[in-house]
Amino acid sequence: MQAPFTTLSTFRDTLAAAPGPDAEAIAGAQDRNGQLTKPPGALGRLEDLAIWYAGWRGDAKPQINAPQVIIFAGNHGVCAQGVSAFPPEVTVQMVANFEHGGAAINQLCKTFGAKMDVYPLSLETPTADFTEAPAMTEEECIAALQTGWNAVDPAADLLVTGEMGIGNTTPAAAISAALLGGDAADWTGRGTGVDDAGLARKTDAVAKGLALHTNRDPLEILRCLGGRELAAMVGAIAAARHYRIPVILDGFICSAAALTLAKAVDGALDHAVAGHLSAEGAHQRLLDALDKEPLLRLGLRLGEGSGAALAIGVLKGAIACHSGMATFAEAGVSDG
Amino acid sequence: MQAPFTTLSTFRDTLAAAPGPDAEAIAGAQDRNGQLTKPPGALGRLEDLAIWYAGWRGDAKPQINAPQVIIFAGNHGVCAQGVSAFPPEVTVQMVANFEHGGAAINQLCKTFGAKMDVYPLSLETPTADFTEAPAMTEEECIAALQTGWNAVDPAADLLVTGEMGIGNTTPAAAISAALLGGDAADWTGRGTGVDDAGLARKTDAVAKGLALHTNRDPLEILRCLGGRELAAMVGAIAAARHYRIPVILDGFICSAAALTLAKAVDGALDHAVAGHLSAEGAHQRLLDALDKEPLLRLGLRLGEGSGAALAIGVLKGAIACHSGMATFAEAGVSDG
Repeated sequence: MQAPFTTLSTFRDTLAAAPGPDAEAIAGAQDRNGQLTKPPGALGRLEDLAIWYAGWRGDAKPQINAPQVIIFAGNHGVCAQGVSAFPPEVTVQMVANFEHGGAAINQLCKTFGAKMDVYPLSLETPTADFTEAPAMTEEECIAALQTGWNAVDPAADLLVTGEMGIGNTTPAAAISAALLGGDAADWTGRGTGVDDAGLARKTDAVAKGLALHTNRDPLEILRCLGGRELAAMVGAIAAARHYRIPVILDGFICSAAALTLAKAVDGALDHAVAGHLSAEGAHQRLLDALDKEPLLRLGLRLGEGSGAALAIGVLKGAIACHSGMATFAEAGVSDG
Repeated sequence: MQAPFTTLSTFRDTLAAAPGPDAEAIAGAQDRNGQLTKPPGALGRLEDLAIWYAGWRGDAKPQINAPQVIIFAGNHGVCAQGVSAFPPEVTVQMVANFEHGGAAINQLCKTFGAKMDVYPLSLETPTADFTEAPAMTEEECIAALQTGWNAVDPAADLLVTGEMGIGNTTPAAAISAALLGGDAADWTGRGTGVDDAGLARKTDAVAKGLALHTNRDPLEILRCLGGRELAAMVGAIAAARHYRIPVILDGFICSAAALTLAKAVDGALDHAVAGHLSAEGAHQRLLDALDKEPLLRLGLRLGEGSGAALAIGVLKGAIACHSGMATFAEAGVSDG
């Protein structure tokens, strides 16, 4: 299906019209969970995950058979401000690495049985430098949202959105600060590893962006301070909601992009869990704002969807237990 | 190979003679890690895990192809003190559930491609009630250690030891208190879910055991306050060290058993990582004493090796990245 929106305003309408979870499947999953051969609550968070997943899939005893990982790549005009430890040409080099199977995310997709798709977004034409102009025109932002939306396989039963884009912790910090308040320095970290001088330039760039773009509408913030790969993740997460495909959010950049959805429409991320806590300093605050507890805390800060892909294993384990275990009655086990 | 010990004293000698990791493989893995297409350190703890695993396997670019999960089951005389929310017959019922594929651990083994073996240990003859006598004679303790040792497949490349035994958080609490100090109440929790009166009986039983058995030799503590499935886990973890098979420790009971090894011989758990932090209250303190940071914190408290089995996914992801990623040179990516 082609994306059912052509403006930021109709995109917001699409979000607002998105379906919720299936109450009957939730009730059925809760009932089943209470009968499985384990003490009540002994699988901890796996039990909550299974019930949540069942609700979105509309199936009290669901399976995960078709996870999809989509990597969106973009380039950023704000790199001209010297905000990254790596040169911008690494974005296109890493896209080739994804396509040849050599990146971390390729290995994780293989390990957890996920299909992986890569979308380079006009890499030869970086977004505008947001210290000087809006990063994207509305047309560019909509095109990226539509690419993200259309990239989602309606037959997928789990979605991870990842990104690659040298410099993109800078727009993520700017979006977070614009939506949640605080100084540029509160949200700006070392990304792939900038030195002290680089961190100062990066913080300065975020501060300039915040001062220049004063409209605090969430989707306008995405357009003015974001980037194509961030907007594409937003479009994909929105499409997943439309299809009731549960989403595992990745780290700082994915979470900042997703925050624009949550701020645009209440509950727009109810179909998403946080895959991990990134080592990028401000990610914890971002997850607090999203009210999401991360599944993993392993100090990753790579992007590419890597932390979320690792969390596919946790969710697969949860669903396997929920849908595969015997009940007390089936197994002839005394239930205490 | 048959277990190379016939007494607790020769078991300790076996532990002391166990091999360490391969320094050359560690150096090779560190070197490789520095060349992979990611910013330095961006895979966080996955990088440390891969280098640790490489060292134990003696291979700078290792694979995980043959994880083994072994579940040992035992019954406990101390159940006569009313320490559990479930009746003792559930141990044998759950063994049947394992054998028929209906338990949580069966689903997790399937999800992460692990072979699963189940060893019921004289379930019809519970250990002695440790509030009245040593739980096991030396002969019984050695038999359980040997069963554990012999259960390990020398061709496995990763080991998880799990347990089933109604009442077995009680010996785990007693062992922890005997080895680490503190009151019975500091180490005694609700296990599968005892009520306040049950918790009081359980704490009292632990206190009685500590008062009755005053020899603080770690292996004597295992014999007097432990149980067959705890001793079997100890034997299996020791065999894994002998074969240089890395181990993922499970929750409170597995960690308490493993602590007897660490206290018997310095460094005896260097080939082991902590799979998860259990919801059983004292587990964090036990992991602090083992100086192990858990891979997962998901509130599980089921035993069966379930938390460790879930962590197989994390370790598989780490090794897949380490051994499968392209280097900067191979991928033609600029390294900053």
